[in-house]
Amino acid sequence: MRHTQAGDLVLLVNEKDRQLFIRMLKPGDQLQTHRGMVLHDDLIGLPYGTQVRSHLGFPFYLLPPTTDELIRNIRRESQIVFPKDSGYIMMKLGIRPGAVVIEAGTGSGGLCVALASMVGDDGHVYSYDNRPKMLRLAGLNLERVGMAHRVTLKSRDILDGFEETAVDAVFLDVRAPWEALDQAHAALTGGGVLGCIVPTNNQLVELIGRLDAHPGFGFVEAEELLLRPYKTVPARIRPADQVVGHTGFLVFCRAIVREAHRVEPATREPGESDSEGG
Amino acid sequence: MRHTQAGDLVLLVNEKDRQLFIRMLKPGDQLQTHRGMVLHDDLIGLPYGTQVRSHLGFPFYLLPPTTDELIRNIRRESQIVFPKDSGYIMMKLGIRPGAVVIEAGTGSGGLCVALASMVGDDGHVYSYDNRPKMLRLAGLNLERVGMAHRVTLKSRDILDGFEETAVDAVFLDVRAPWEALDQAHAALTGGGVLGCIVPTNNQLVELIGRLDAHPGFGFVEAEELLLRPYKTVPARIRPADQVVGHTGFLVFCRAIVREAHRVEPATREPGESDSEGG
Amino acid sequence: MRHTQAGDLVLLVNEKDRQLFIRMLKPGDQLQTHRGMVLHDDLIGLPYGTQVRSHLGFPFYLLPPTTDELIRNIRRESQIVFPKDSGYIMMKLGIRPGAVVIEAGTGSGGLCVALASMVGDDGHVYSYDNRPKMLRLAGLNLERVGMAHRVTLKSRDILDGFEETAVDAVFLDVRAPWEALDQAHAALTGGGVLGCIVPTNNQLVELIGRLDAHPGFGFVEAEELLLRPYKTVPARIRPADQVVGHTGFLVFCRAIVREAHRVEPATREPGESDSEGG
Amino acid sequence: MRHTQAGDLVLLVNEKDRQLFIRMLKPGDQLQTHRGMVLHDDLIGLPYGTQVRSHLGFPFYLLPPTTDELIRNIRRESQIVFPKDSGYIMMKLGIRPGAVVIEAGTGSGGLCVALASMVGDDGHVYSYDNRPKMLRLAGLNLERVGMAHRVTLKSRDILDGFEETAVDAVFLDVRAPWEALDQAHAALTGGGVLGCIVPTNNQLVELIGRLDAHPGFGFVEAEELLLRPYKTVPARIRPADQVVGHTGFLVFCRAIVREAHRVEPATREPGESDSEGG
Repeated sequence: MRHTQAGDLVLLVNEKDRQLFIRMLKPGDQLQTHRGMVLHDDLIGLPYGTQVRSHLGFPFYLLPPTTDELIRNIRRESQIVFPKDSGYIMMKLGIRPGAVVIEAGTGSGGLCVALASMVGDDGHVYSYDNRPKMLRLAGLNLERVGMAHRVTLKSRDILDGFEETAVDAVFLDVRAPWEALDQAHAALTGGGVLGCIVPTNNQLVELIGRLDAHPGFGFVEAEELLLRPYKTVPARIRPADQVVGHTGFLVFCRAIVREAHRVEPATREPGESDSEGG
Repeated sequence: MRHTQAGDLVLLVNEKDRQLFIRMLKPGDQLQTHRGMVLHDDLIGLPYGTQVRSHLGFPFYLLPPTTDELIRNIRRESQIVFPKDSGYIMMKLGIRPGAVVIEAGTGSGGLCVALASMVGDDGHVYSYDNRPKMLRLAGLNLERVGMAHRVTLKSRDILDGFEETAVDAVFLDVRAPWEALDQAHAALTGGGVLGCIVPTNNQLVELIGRLDAHPGFGFVEAEELLLRPYKTVPARIRPADQVVGHTGFLVFCRAIVREAHRVEPATREPGESDSEGG
Repeated sequence: MRHTQAGDLVLLVNEKDRQLFIRMLKPGDQLQTHRGMVLHDDLIGLPYGTQVRSHLGFPFYLLPPTTDELIRNIRRESQIVFPKDSGYIMMKLGIRPGAVVIEAGTGSGGLCVALASMVGDDGHVYSYDNRPKMLRLAGLNLERVGMAHRVTLKSRDILDGFEETAVDAVFLDVRAPWEALDQAHAALTGGGVLGCIVPTNNQLVELIGRLDAHPGFGFVEAEELLLRPYKTVPARIRPADQVVGHTGFLVFCRAIVREAHRVEPATREPGESDSEGG
Repeated sequence: MRHTQAGDLVLLVNEKDRQLFIRMLKPGDQLQTHRGMVLHDDLIGLPYGTQVRSHLGFPFYLLPPTTDELIRNIRRESQIVFPKDSGYIMMKLGIRPGAVVIEAGTGSGGLCVALASMVGDDGHVYSYDNRPKMLRLAGLNLERVGMAHRVTLKSRDILDGFEETAVDAVFLDVRAPWEALDQAHAALTGGGVLGCIVPTNNQLVELIGRLDAHPGFGFVEAEELLLRPYKTVPARIRPADQVVGHTGFLVFCRAIVREAHRVEPATREPGESDSEGG
């Protein structure tokens, strides 16, 4: 059984209210909650999965935080990208250990934390926002979970272009992503993925029209993920009554070079015609 | 602009039919498609994102494959875990570079490929199945994408227990996951995550009942993800007509120790009572 | 342009808060709202579709109420069947002018109002509940919309059987509809429709198992309707954020006689075999 | 137990393939199916709910058709309005026995059959289409279910206006409903309901913009209904795999007169101001 150590990122959560407290354990520190205080020194060395109590006797479980919980724990001043969307975005952008990715805007840093978790120490995230206040907040959120070293926060208008090139993926969570298509294309490696999230139908219509007309992008896809949570009382299992009905439309495409790079005639079998199939 | 090299894992895909061909580039090899043949030698050294043609003239784009595409490309003899579910599973299980995870059953290896992509070379996946045929297929699928070294395939009935301990997460995609709860608990680190996917309502009801009654698990959640793809013809954007309406119910919980580990009285402030809050 | 008359059922609704007030116009009466008072005498003779103001100056539109609005206007002490489900129930039960239908339980009378609206003066609704308080409330709700004469409210435990026979349809909105299958069958005409709504997965599993095993019912179907409302601000059209994620599972089946009533041999063409087709 | 009579509209359906045959019973007629022939004379006088067999021995149940089945049975040469949408449309348009409603376009007549079922013999449906071929098909479909007398089919371009006035509701299932808003308004009674169905996001955005800008309409709502069918095998109950993911966006609004018709000062209480509330 694994025990906590100083420097561990741990989650304290009560089973009923499920409010999350994520902290990096540091001798001498204390966690203040609305239900009482907990000393880090009392947490260090405990086995994960056990229950601790605040000085008021309120019980918390001591757990290693998942990526879902890291995202939910973000201190936010803006709408964040939800874990359901974040997970799918990882799959569609091809985010893996070692990947290099640009995102804009940073916002509160929710997706940034998810990206930084996944690219690992061998990858990197460049996150752009032109609102200094949001960058400060995102920086704080990244610090708290020990991932600041994987992210470069940039205060810059993306219409002026991204400063990186040949990145694996670009993700845009901005009001008018269609205005930054050239900039995204310039930053992407050949075949790299551009992903966008837009909340309204108007934006979806505009964005798809612009992507379709852009010579540097192909394989345009649009999707939406609906998360249906269930109540888990064993005798009365049922979908939840009140749910989040919409977060945003997800749009993905690939940076391509439209002019054909033909296989050399020498590799053709004799007698084959030049005409295109299918 | 990045160019392909021998040893690269590349994707060839036609923009219209979107059929995927993922191959590791190897001098001398050739890719046979229903639309003609392509020599690996003709692909090596090309810039990513460009178009190539088969000897019959059929055009393909040459792209770096995303995790979504790796999963879709799996040769399958069983239902696979879809990318929409895989991405969310990563978030909920806390799969990150370096994570150690058990899954059962392996099946065709779709989730296995996703997990192996995410844990990286510092993590590991132990995948159990008691059907030798499926293990062979999964092994082949892992080989093809260069991830076999990150996965240990095990031919073993999970009712006999898992051979690993203190793993970060266990994921069960089996007919009766409730029969293997003790085994999963024994394999998990304290606070680790157990995830399950079950296709039927009957299983959902049974599983939640059993998890609720199990003293070693808490924080039971059940959810379902619905993916809504859109048609992206610019003048007629609309949700797709025929869609996958259901893949499975996702159930997550945490390995916990129910008896309280109380904070030591010495850390209490004088005058505080022992009574529980909340 | 049609003008209101004494005796008309009218809707007063403010365009912003959309709170509904449905009243039968009666000289001398007054409508009290949280935004001021309106005299019925001031409403009688006005053209439908126009705006009126309360004595506090708060504006209301004067409209003929739709069935949707009649249902939403129900004074409720229990969950009601939502319009999205009610409309579909009408289609599946075959509720038309002249239809005779039984429902249980009555509850606040929401579905009862919808059924009574649709069967018209030539049809009839028999509505059972064993809670006198709910029957009184439903009776009041029916009175208010002028439909009490189309409904017979019955204070009776449905396990003791329904008092009608050969009805076109039976709809059960009770905790354990599977306990009343024989009673429903006895009340239905041959080929008549039994419909049920149940909120939990446990009930869905139990009900389908019981219907499948019952010799008097066939053509079992289960469905669920999800209503997705959109925000209609022209520049920012989008699905609503917070929505009702679940109301209930709808189950429908038909009263059938399983033993074959074969077409007489005389109608067979010579040489045809007796064996059953496909 | 009710028995069939000549002139009854009956449904023959096999429990496995669920293909529908709806016919009006007529002595001497015969029903040809892909599974053999059935003489109407053999059906007349049978109890509803019983099983009959074709001359090839294929079994059918003899049932009274529901509105859902009438719609599904439509011979179609165009997409029809699905029962899930039809039922909700009835609720939102306030379609009841006696209602007078206009629809355009008629198409194959699916919604027309539903409307005609619900307005009864005291109401009426005026259905417009400018494609003579579709009107003929719809006329045939209405004849077959005995509802032609409740519907007036009109071959006319709706941009030239509707010929009726003061109708309770107008429903538009046409490519560009926003082009006929004035025409719809002229046909509607005060406070009457305009409903539209449009399949694409582009149309939804356009329609809502136009309705919002039109002075004669208010209370604009947009919604979408998703039907989730379940497989009902008792031991493996689950949502269906392949489903209809989208039919259309439903938009509803009310014909209103925007200039205020104020309650007369005489009804105000002394001392009340004229200023508008809330």
